[in-house]
Amino acid sequence: MDRFAETERTAIKRASHKGSFERDVVYEILDEALYCHVGFVHDGSPVVVPTTHGRDGDLLYLHGSPGSRMFRILRTGVELSVSVTLLDGLVLARSLYNSSMHYRSVAIFGTARQTEGSEKLHGLEVISNHTLPGRWDHARRPSEKELRATTVLAIPIEEASAKISTGPPDDEEEDYSLDVWAGVVPLRLTAGPPIPDPAPDAIELPDHVRALLKRHRSD
Amino acid sequence: MDRFAETERTAIKRASHKGSFERDVVYEILDEALYCHVGFVHDGSPVVVPTTHGRDGDLLYLHGSPGSRMFRILRTGVELSVSVTLLDGLVLARSLYNSSMHYRSVAIFGTARQTEGSEKLHGLEVISNHTLPGRWDHARRPSEKELRATTVLAIPIEEASAKISTGPPDDEEEDYSLDVWAGVVPLRLTAGPPIPDPAPDAIELPDHVRALLKRHRSD
Repeated sequence: MDRFAETERTAIKRASHKGSFERDVVYEILDEALYCHVGFVHDGSPVVVPTTHGRDGDLLYLHGSPGSRMFRILRTGVELSVSVTLLDGLVLARSLYNSSMHYRSVAIFGTARQTEGSEKLHGLEVISNHTLPGRWDHARRPSEKELRATTVLAIPIEEASAKISTGPPDDEEEDYSLDVWAGVVPLRLTAGPPIPDPAPDAIELPDHVRALLKRHRSD
Repeated sequence: MDRFAETERTAIKRASHKGSFERDVVYEILDEALYCHVGFVHDGSPVVVPTTHGRDGDLLYLHGSPGSRMFRILRTGVELSVSVTLLDGLVLARSLYNSSMHYRSVAIFGTARQTEGSEKLHGLEVISNHTLPGRWDHARRPSEKELRATTVLAIPIEEASAKISTGPPDDEEEDYSLDVWAGVVPLRLTAGPPIPDPAPDAIELPDHVRALLKRHRSD
């Protein structure tokens, strides 16, 4: 299935031309974002928590402390939603009403299941290589004790949609003559110079970190 | 009150040294972030939606279409939560287990009320000047018709906390001798060169947009 089925929850009701149910579109946004926001219900109240993620095929992986509120609740299989947002710019129209932002966002609705054994280790590899490709092969992998102190959840990506906002400002006809600057200010996440751990460390910056700097360069 | 009272929902249970209930700390994070994620419950399911915000004193303002699902639900005064996250860097420890991120985040729990009349207009000014200080005075303000097509919600900030993660990697004693690069890669949102609206437009880039570029410069 190349497309997600539209559901009542994922239907794009506003600005529907910006919506997409294509798996490729949803996955590209998930893969570019360095973190997501997970929503769940606790004692009847909505809770939203930021966390890192990783994707392998149609599974989204999350990891955290077994004792954390979020992981204690999510591993019971309750309903959750995941929101991922990439801010790409400010759209400055001549009117404030038509001003907006460039963004790419994804909404996922589903449930999580706890992973064990080889899938748990695989989930951690997926999350690690999502955050920084190549890190899993460079750094020390989790020990048995560290694995026991980590919960890894898998969320099947079955109900999802993307929303993408691009393009120049769309002003009212009568506003184009106004003495107002209009346009787009692009925004992106950029990496600054790496700060080596002040502890004694003679290791040269490895290729996988150089690749990150290239991916998040400011030009 | 300079500090928020700690509640069951805002208590920082993990990594408690990173938590803060200081109003100043919470408000600085809210004010720097260009968008937030709002969580609410719809038909028993958690929903998370990204949106822009603005703060004036102890009130957080949100705006959107009166017909949107989120605004139809939130204006009835149901419980909501707001999560704001600023990603400041990747913390690359020698072990994957101790690797993490630098971030500043805020969690707010509360309810919203719909604003009308002068407060509604004020809320829009607050949101506009939050996104881009000076824009309210430069661009065309909302007409009566546009105001009717906009819902502005005010959320009293009464139950909130912040979480801040900084500092170098904290590795296990025995890992410092490993042949692994460790350190921090700083990340920040930077602005690219403004793209003027391709529509005929002779206006020079105004000071308030130049100030934005300076605030989000890449160096």
